[in-house]
Amino acid sequence: LALVDAADGADAVRVLTSLAPRPPLSQAAARVPSSAIRDLLALTGSSDVLSLAGGLPALGHVHDPVLATAAARVVDDAEAVQYGTTEGWPPLRRWIARRLSNGSGGVAAAADDVRVTHGSQQAIDLVVRALVDPGDVVVVERPTYLGAVQALAPAAARVHAVPVDADGLDTHLLADALRAGLRPRLCYLAPTFQNPSGVVMSAERRAHLAELASHHGFVVVDDDPYRDLAFSPPPPPLRAWLDPELSVTLGTFSKVLAPGLRVGWVHGPPWLVAALTRLKQATDLHTSTVAQRIVAEVVTPPDWLDGRIGRLVALHRHRAAVLTGALRDRLDGRLHLADARGGMFLWGRLDDDLGLDADALLPGALARGVAFVPGAAFACDDAPSSHLRLCFATLDDDRLTEAAHRLAGAVADAARAGPGAR
Amino acid sequence: LALVDAADGADAVRVLTSLAPRPPLSQAAARVPSSAIRDLLALTGSSDVLSLAGGLPALGHVHDPVLATAAARVVDDAEAVQYGTTEGWPPLRRWIARRLSNGSGGVAAAADDVRVTHGSQQAIDLVVRALVDPGDVVVVERPTYLGAVQALAPAAARVHAVPVDADGLDTHLLADALRAGLRPRLCYLAPTFQNPSGVVMSAERRAHLAELASHHGFVVVDDDPYRDLAFSPPPPPLRAWLDPELSVTLGTFSKVLAPGLRVGWVHGPPWLVAALTRLKQATDLHTSTVAQRIVAEVVTPPDWLDGRIGRLVALHRHRAAVLTGALRDRLDGRLHLADARGGMFLWGRLDDDLGLDADALLPGALARGVAFVPGAAFACDDAPSSHLRLCFATLDDDRLTEAAHRLAGAVADAARAGPGAR
Repeated sequence: LALVDAADGADAVRVLTSLAPRPPLSQAAARVPSSAIRDLLALTGSSDVLSLAGGLPALGHVHDPVLATAAARVVDDAEAVQYGTTEGWPPLRRWIARRLSNGSGGVAAAADDVRVTHGSQQAIDLVVRALVDPGDVVVVERPTYLGAVQALAPAAARVHAVPVDADGLDTHLLADALRAGLRPRLCYLAPTFQNPSGVVMSAERRAHLAELASHHGFVVVDDDPYRDLAFSPPPPPLRAWLDPELSVTLGTFSKVLAPGLRVGWVHGPPWLVAALTRLKQATDLHTSTVAQRIVAEVVTPPDWLDGRIGRLVALHRHRAAVLTGALRDRLDGRLHLADARGGMFLWGRLDDDLGLDADALLPGALARGVAFVPGAAFACDDAPSSHLRLCFATLDDDRLTEAAHRLAGAVADAARAGPGAR
Repeated sequence: LALVDAADGADAVRVLTSLAPRPPLSQAAARVPSSAIRDLLALTGSSDVLSLAGGLPALGHVHDPVLATAAARVVDDAEAVQYGTTEGWPPLRRWIARRLSNGSGGVAAAADDVRVTHGSQQAIDLVVRALVDPGDVVVVERPTYLGAVQALAPAAARVHAVPVDADGLDTHLLADALRAGLRPRLCYLAPTFQNPSGVVMSAERRAHLAELASHHGFVVVDDDPYRDLAFSPPPPPLRAWLDPELSVTLGTFSKVLAPGLRVGWVHGPPWLVAALTRLKQATDLHTSTVAQRIVAEVVTPPDWLDGRIGRLVALHRHRAAVLTGALRDRLDGRLHLADARGGMFLWGRLDDDLGLDADALLPGALARGVAFVPGAAFACDDAPSSHLRLCFATLDDDRLTEAAHRLAGAVADAARAGPGAR
């Protein structure tokens, strides 16, 4: 390796400097796991695997040229393609506040307390950055949304996972932990058609959680992306019970309009949204004005969005029934399922007698041409799980039926091989 | 305050819990300052103040219906409005890699090493999060881009600011500091038509910085949003000199296409872009597929973008001359200016004999109906500054001339009042 004169030019420098050690990543970056779901999707994306793994709403089936017309009109406006405010486009914030105030489970909300984010994932990230110092305790559900696990990782939060049962996060277990000295800064949960479990937290538990939050002074984040995808009306958001100073609600247009627009929002107390605004300014200046205005254009006419949601929910409900039926037909006694009440997912549990982890089932399922997400992905400790998350929203009836058939084949293979073979 | 039974309902809980103390913000959030520019813009936005404070490219004057057509086509495609990959839309990443490889100052780049971000501000935030632990040293220019100061704040970086002269960041001062023991993890700079100073770093200094980076093993971020807005060709990006393992380049479509789309990109070594991808996944899943595809649609036809850039640069050059001429006519000897070489900003310096800080001048200027950004906003320590950042890109000729006239009036007022009056 010749030590040439570095000032001579780029090539010379490059030779000289290939000796430089690679700098280390920050501790925060080193803590962030990749998403098992996304890694899996990358594997299955280009093959003929039937994927129950993703979480794509059936938006192609409620396609509406109104969106394209709005997009053209917005982008043709020179002001709409310029920089915007960090807080979000005021007419959209007003619409969101009205939506929060009216409709199913509405509680009065002011546009001043709404911030538009680049999807609700960004809202999770911002709230965590605003409230969590390294070592702080954050309460989550077990299982919980994978994106929350990822957002919590760089913050070096100490995650305390509280099990979810048929009534949602078990607030009595949380109360025990609080009595024993747990001091959370934050409780993050998705109490309505939870991803992955589909569970709806009962009104009683909601009230109990609010009482605990007030008593111990921690912030509660109600991540509520699936509220509109209800087969029957869920309880009001946690906001209806929480002290407003401790209450954060997240929402998104991704499930009912277009995930590719990346428009979500956060509603919270002034002291917190002020901090979120400064952090968002530092993070990405503001959410795409183009995307915000497209959303505002299409949702403003009365009833358009609700009509679209009605058609989408009818389709999802049908598909949930198709997948549930097909799985029960083919996996009776081997895979336990509750009826879906909304959202996009079934949460199957492999029967204990199979002695089979969902992780161990996955390679065989992929080989048979069906993908799902193993339950361990939704825990914060990667503990083995007999659960499978199965999305009923994306595939059509024939493919859902065929996917259930393939999954049954994979389970049968594994059962035949027995625990020893794994 | 009656202590009612909390389980009775939401209202009762709210009465009981208004006693809860407000939880503290995280240390990271407490460290993030608001943007002086944005606070100022909020003040001037709805009045008849002529604003030289913002940084809006003159995109209204290169308006092209091609954008609206592309937007309609993209949004009409059910796949384009679905979720996308964190890395970014592959055809856009390939286009960016080709652009980096060819054209003025091109150095071969692979699409695999490009990630699409929600504006280049997000790329700064992600790089800082990926590399900087609390207390780590980050070298920046003095003055530097305000958005970088904001992105560095939550990371608790120790910022070491190296003065910029007419040839850019003074690498000899940096070399002295490194010899004296400075150990940066990162050096962030905008060496080409810098915001705010407009300075272009010389090729010699670029080579010297690369040599220092290699010797000491720190990553260099070349934030390069203004390269296309050149009145004459600048030197190649730092990438042409840097060890590829230590070289990060940021770019954006905000200055030449549409800031409201929020599409930027980062190019860097595989070890780093892998970490950026995981962090971005945790932060916002992916950049709007709609925005990415609109960009890709319009930039793909050969020469369309370069034609647009040519018209935009001609207009910017003209406006820079108008503002510079008007300021020199009215503020001869009181405001010192270099000729603009590209970008969007003039960096004026109030004559020492005035004994006047730009901060102190601002209220009088606003009272006379003209806004600018005081130089102190671009330092990391808010030290007083006699500099003003003046954007020449946004206003038309008459308004630029009138703004210069108003600014001269404000300076005359301040000079008359004398230091004692301030």
